[in-house]
Amino acid sequence: MTNRLPNLQINAERLWSDIHETAQFGGTPKGGVRRLTLSEEDRLVRNWFRNACEAAGCEVHVDALGSMFAIRPGRDNGKPPIGIGSHLDTQPTGGKFDGVLGTLAGLEVIRTLNDAGIETDAPICLVNWTNEEGSRFAPAMMASGAYAGDFTVDDILSREDSDGVTVGEALDAIGYRGSEPVGQRQLGAFVELHIEQGPILERENKTIGVVERGQGILWYDGRITGFERHASTPMEYRQDALVALSEIVLAVERIASAHAPQAVATVGEVVIANPSRNVVPGEIAFTMDVRSPDEAIMTALDSDIRSAIADIAMLRKVAIAFESVWCKPPTIFNPAVVTAVEQASAALGYSHRRIISGAGHDACNLNAVVPTAMIFVPCKDGISHNELEDATQADCAAGANVLLHAALALAGVSASGDVPTVRPS
Amino acid sequence: MTNRLPNLQINAERLWSDIHETAQFGGTPKGGVRRLTLSEEDRLVRNWFRNACEAAGCEVHVDALGSMFAIRPGRDNGKPPIGIGSHLDTQPTGGKFDGVLGTLAGLEVIRTLNDAGIETDAPICLVNWTNEEGSRFAPAMMASGAYAGDFTVDDILSREDSDGVTVGEALDAIGYRGSEPVGQRQLGAFVELHIEQGPILERENKTIGVVERGQGILWYDGRITGFERHASTPMEYRQDALVALSEIVLAVERIASAHAPQAVATVGEVVIANPSRNVVPGEIAFTMDVRSPDEAIMTALDSDIRSAIADIAMLRKVAIAFESVWCKPPTIFNPAVVTAVEQASAALGYSHRRIISGAGHDACNLNAVVPTAMIFVPCKDGISHNELEDATQADCAAGANVLLHAALALAGVSASGDVPTVRPS
Repeated sequence: MTNRLPNLQINAERLWSDIHETAQFGGTPKGGVRRLTLSEEDRLVRNWFRNACEAAGCEVHVDALGSMFAIRPGRDNGKPPIGIGSHLDTQPTGGKFDGVLGTLAGLEVIRTLNDAGIETDAPICLVNWTNEEGSRFAPAMMASGAYAGDFTVDDILSREDSDGVTVGEALDAIGYRGSEPVGQRQLGAFVELHIEQGPILERENKTIGVVERGQGILWYDGRITGFERHASTPMEYRQDALVALSEIVLAVERIASAHAPQAVATVGEVVIANPSRNVVPGEIAFTMDVRSPDEAIMTALDSDIRSAIADIAMLRKVAIAFESVWCKPPTIFNPAVVTAVEQASAALGYSHRRIISGAGHDACNLNAVVPTAMIFVPCKDGISHNELEDATQADCAAGANVLLHAALALAGVSASGDVPTVRPS
Repeated sequence: MTNRLPNLQINAERLWSDIHETAQFGGTPKGGVRRLTLSEEDRLVRNWFRNACEAAGCEVHVDALGSMFAIRPGRDNGKPPIGIGSHLDTQPTGGKFDGVLGTLAGLEVIRTLNDAGIETDAPICLVNWTNEEGSRFAPAMMASGAYAGDFTVDDILSREDSDGVTVGEALDAIGYRGSEPVGQRQLGAFVELHIEQGPILERENKTIGVVERGQGILWYDGRITGFERHASTPMEYRQDALVALSEIVLAVERIASAHAPQAVATVGEVVIANPSRNVVPGEIAFTMDVRSPDEAIMTALDSDIRSAIADIAMLRKVAIAFESVWCKPPTIFNPAVVTAVEQASAALGYSHRRIISGAGHDACNLNAVVPTAMIFVPCKDGISHNELEDATQADCAAGANVLLHAALALAGVSASGDVPTVRPS
């Protein structure tokens, strides 16, 4: 067995086929995927995933927030399993790879171990986390956050989507409210493979990103209250909420750009109350997403944005409510697990570099309670959260191979020590 | 009868009571009215109006677009009737006076003539025009526009609301698709009383605005196509549709302000496609409303706005479709009818001034085919298209009295010449 290990490779065709087969659950005409968490499409892909895991010899457990844990037993089932996986939900107009790659690559790792007849020391636990995207229910990475103790389960179960449906109701509706207490299943380590969702690897022609850090994230909800008036109102008498919003959008862009590349900021949602073509907007709700890998810069961004908003409110004679709804500090991944990923990349001969994750991931939540790291592969033009999201079969396979060998290193294969053991710090 | 005429006054209490009684059809908790055209609430107020007109001895006719014509016969029913009236539909969060005052003051004029036993030479025709507001179906002032020949009836009947319901279906649903051909009913003149919807009369402490001109109106539909990306995308790689929109909103404000007080411009509707908190907006639809009383300035505004949008598209690397969906030239009301309004104001001893209407009105459409003018009364703080819209009982009564005496002058009361005859030019 030890001789086979260095050359062991996943089945790239099989992985590629799985990615395209599951993309049909919520597939869009433009080649993307619309699979909101806990929707009917999510139910279908979950059923597919459970069947595939069981066919691969795993026992599938579901926790109280619907996260799925497929266990491949090891030689010593008293050891905490080594977690791999990601998520199967998508953005409203998402792509085929975000989350899906890491989850199905985990399945492919298990199938590859089965095909090669390899038993690991520790079990392997393949995870599909509920609601990574946060498009239907806030916050994003909800289930991994609860797993890590950031939220209570009751709190999360009561969160509502825009139609007033709660997480609990949605779980019941698709039959995925499991019995396992959230956070009970201990993991020895966790490795998540994901597309980069940024342009760096592609531009530098690198195959693997060894993710050593994740950006901190600030989410805000804002509400501007000006005054609804007829569109014939003279310019000088207006308190136009949309004009104030426009100034906020441009100010926030300036503030983030001043800290580039250590900061990004986005206003992603804007809703005018009672919009009408011939009415000056009187009230607008908006959301904001601000990110940085550096905690000091996050503090500065928060302060600069609040100050800019206060100035705009005064200048434009509008009231602006602006409150933080979520704050996630930057993630510093576990050095030993990062090293396992880096060594696997090197051993497999892939070009690689250390990288920072711009997006939030379930791995960022997990890192607080489980030694964790991530593997990135390039995606076309850095495009994600878009139906045009794309990645090559070769890069997906490379990422899955790094996942395979990092997991083997972390789980251990024999007592003889021919697979390096990583001790999470 | 001639002796009574100079002192004839409408019943201010009755008018005030009618305004508040009808405000219950679609009344909002904040004291405004939500009575979208051809809605259930509109059906209720139309029934109330028809019953009141019939009780006042009028015969009520309904045309193929639902506009209602209540005829009070004159001495010579071969003469074209003198039109008075306005509209009973409101904005989604509108007030109690916009449109309602002019329509119910017309009813009050007829009741006052009845009470005084006055027969006019020409008949009086009280009109409730369908869909002045344009909030549910575009364009605004739809029925008066069709009356004036700006649109075909088939075109208007096929217009859809945001749920895909056509005007024809909505008319049938409330039972107000009438049999009278649109535009068939000839009018000798038309006078519309309305709240100013601007601050000038209140600031100058004038009771009556003698409206001599109406602003020209340009309506545009715009669509910005950038690129949807994950909110972690570095600032320099973005093609953010919302940032482009923000620049447009501020540019258009600058352009209109540069021509103030001869121009106003408003972006009233903004819809992000597939909005998500952590996605850079890729596509945005918006509408724009631009107004000026001067045709040369309208041409300059159109040119400046198009030029600014082209610059922003290039700078922000987005595509921007921007098309004119409606263009109404400035209205120059009929000098003889304007004079009738002015003379009635003077005869009644009200302080008054000539004024330009910032808003579009059915009277602006009518003016192309019927000698027309308008009467304005102050509204509180110039606020309209808002639940806080307000006007005093005294000002409403003053406007109705001017309407009464202008209508008497235009319709003629006796052959003796003691009421001035206005000959529309």
